[in-house]
Amino acid sequence: MDGPLELNFRHEVKGEKLVIAIAQDYKTSEVLMVAYMNKEALEKTIETGKAHYWSTSRGKLWFKGESSGHFQEVKEILTDCDEDAVLLKVKQNGGACHEGYFSCFFRQICSEDSVGQDAGKCNVRIVKEKIFEPEKIYGEK
Amino acid sequence: MDGPLELNFRHEVKGEKLVIAIAQDYKTSEVLMVAYMNKEALEKTIETGKAHYWSTSRGKLWFKGESSGHFQEVKEILTDCDEDAVLLKVKQNGGACHEGYFSCFFRQICSEDSVGQDAGKCNVRIVKEKIFEPEKIYGEK
Repeated sequence: MDGPLELNFRHEVKGEKLVIAIAQDYKTSEVLMVAYMNKEALEKTIETGKAHYWSTSRGKLWFKGESSGHFQEVKEILTDCDEDAVLLKVKQNGGACHEGYFSCFFRQICSEDSVGQDAGKCNVRIVKEKIFEPEKIYGEK
Repeated sequence: MDGPLELNFRHEVKGEKLVIAIAQDYKTSEVLMVAYMNKEALEKTIETGKAHYWSTSRGKLWFKGESSGHFQEVKEILTDCDEDAVLLKVKQNGGACHEGYFSCFFRQICSEDSVGQDAGKCNVRIVKEKIFEPEKIYGEK
């Protein structure tokens, strides 16, 4: 139904209540990444217009692009039928992926030719081009 | 790296180890839905070429479209940098959403005009058209 914003933060990681958040390029519709948001991350995203997530590994609010400058300008936010996931349409500055790719989904598991085969025969292969060198953005590890 | 298929089923719901699975229209790139897969669901998806998920509410394998006929033919599968999520490019038969929409993301939280405002002022509104009547597909509730 239409109405006030009330999402179902039903995904729980280490005690934090979360929704799944998918970021998608607002022009090409390429899916860039998927992460989680808690209520604070969603509110910060709406209020600043820049995507904020909840880092489940670090257990804290994560302003995407804070260290790299590769932030995401939010153009539209949608939610799904269960209201436990959001879809952000964003303008991605730089690349979404810390490994140097525009999208985090740069590895293919199956092509149309390999669907229908034994899953054990699948090979993962890189199918996108790198757009930046991570060590130049994040520093040497 | 390129190599054999080894995903990180790190998302745990009720003891089941899962990856996040996003389904996207293979032609228009519209995001259709997000759900989870366990290892068996991923293998069934690859081997049959039709999307299978893990239903966290029912605690069992979920062959998408089994009751509605609205199954998803898988054209390509990608994984992300953390290898804890998969992106399925699919041909969606009928609609992905049990509420009668092609995509489950049929409600808007924020438009470009409303980003930047207080999150408490957000209103959720339906921005897509229904393509089928659920009670005709799933029967009366």
